[in-house]
Amino acid sequence: MTEAAHTLVLLRHGESEWNALNLFTGWVDVPLSEKGRTEATAGGRMLVDSGVLPDVVHTSVLRRAITTASLALDAADRHWIGVKRSWRLNERHYGALQGKDKKQTLAEFGEEQFMLWRRSYDTPPPPIELGSEFSQDADPRYAALGDDLPRTECLADVVARMLPYWDEEVVPDLRAGKTVLLAAHGNSLRALVKHLDGISDTDIAGLNIPTGIPLVYRLDADLRPTVPGGQYLDPAAAQAAAAAVANQGR
Amino acid sequence: MTEAAHTLVLLRHGESEWNALNLFTGWVDVPLSEKGRTEATAGGRMLVDSGVLPDVVHTSVLRRAITTASLALDAADRHWIGVKRSWRLNERHYGALQGKDKKQTLAEFGEEQFMLWRRSYDTPPPPIELGSEFSQDADPRYAALGDDLPRTECLADVVARMLPYWDEEVVPDLRAGKTVLLAAHGNSLRALVKHLDGISDTDIAGLNIPTGIPLVYRLDADLRPTVPGGQYLDPAAAQAAAAAVANQGR
Repeated sequence: MTEAAHTLVLLRHGESEWNALNLFTGWVDVPLSEKGRTEATAGGRMLVDSGVLPDVVHTSVLRRAITTASLALDAADRHWIGVKRSWRLNERHYGALQGKDKKQTLAEFGEEQFMLWRRSYDTPPPPIELGSEFSQDADPRYAALGDDLPRTECLADVVARMLPYWDEEVVPDLRAGKTVLLAAHGNSLRALVKHLDGISDTDIAGLNIPTGIPLVYRLDADLRPTVPGGQYLDPAAAQAAAAAVANQGR
Repeated sequence: MTEAAHTLVLLRHGESEWNALNLFTGWVDVPLSEKGRTEATAGGRMLVDSGVLPDVVHTSVLRRAITTASLALDAADRHWIGVKRSWRLNERHYGALQGKDKKQTLAEFGEEQFMLWRRSYDTPPPPIELGSEFSQDADPRYAALGDDLPRTECLADVVARMLPYWDEEVVPDLRAGKTVLLAAHGNSLRALVKHLDGISDTDIAGLNIPTGIPLVYRLDADLRPTVPGGQYLDPAAAQAAAAAVANQGR
């Protein structure tokens, strides 16, 4: 094992109101459910118990990640640290599926198409219609993106837009010796883990990241994980939760 | 009236648990009360109703201001904007009075001494003992301050440590055309208002800023208020609240 030089903590937001309703969410900006708020606070307590104290937090621009970070950091007495936010840490844009019921989508399009949209590396769902209810084209937080605003994304697209943020904003904080908390989403975190652990385009399909449980990566001087896959602060809960995520829509 | 070039919004945090208990708080990091959380959310709704939408938020490093900003911005659908925090926006350090009951302090030291500590411009309370229960000398968020960590402050001290932050961090955001929300405390906001409106060391004693009601300053190109004293988004409530603050400890 190489020597750990840097500490990175990944935290997937807890249950949102639409997770609870089993709807595809993507870039739709729904709040956490009460259960999700409880998960976030519990995640913050795990940070304290394990002595992993973030010096800076990076979040997406979606409130379920922002609130998760706020609640977890407040519980960890680290609410006062620096904050950076970017759309590049957002959940995958689910295109025309945004706002649709997962179970209904499975029934309508069948197992094969459903799993292709959910799990294939490079097949995005159909693009969302501009101006439609769950599109973000009038949202001021994305105004600077102009025509680059995604209308749908596959995981490969998420990797492509997330990595520049990792390189330009997160890595400098790690190299400055800061413990970094990254509060984000199932697919933006899968994209990062794929990069960190060198997971293939095929194998990433099998990786689920549970909600609310901090995943700690100790990275060496070359930013390679000293323990592949990192370490969950509550491994048993993480294993049970990952299995549950894999069964969504069933 | 000169033309308004910049928009600055001041927001004093809502009731904290120690406000409710009538204790001197200063740098002690107490949470908002339920009433304080409600005030913060109401303040955010006032921003929406008046169309004053912040592009960036500056807060102190105390959770009552941080939570106020988070709740207000979430209510205003501006939770995703950039965030900057600094101890220079903290409440006045109340020295040895931190943690003490206001009414009891008034009874113990008498009206004259009590009002001198609360309202004189340049008489700080006795310094807090290092290592005591309500001192911040072991708090990691102030580690970089070293021997400059305040042990007590008068309002003149707050002006002196707040103004460099105003000049170096807030003014550049205003000059970049951003609407700035500054979520802070009774005395750090009084210090700023004193500067903006050119209030004398004597007259500032009579100025109270109510909690939870956004105070909007439209500033001209030279950062002078186009309307002296700014404009509260709920003027009637602001007037009633300011009167109540003035009677604290009675």
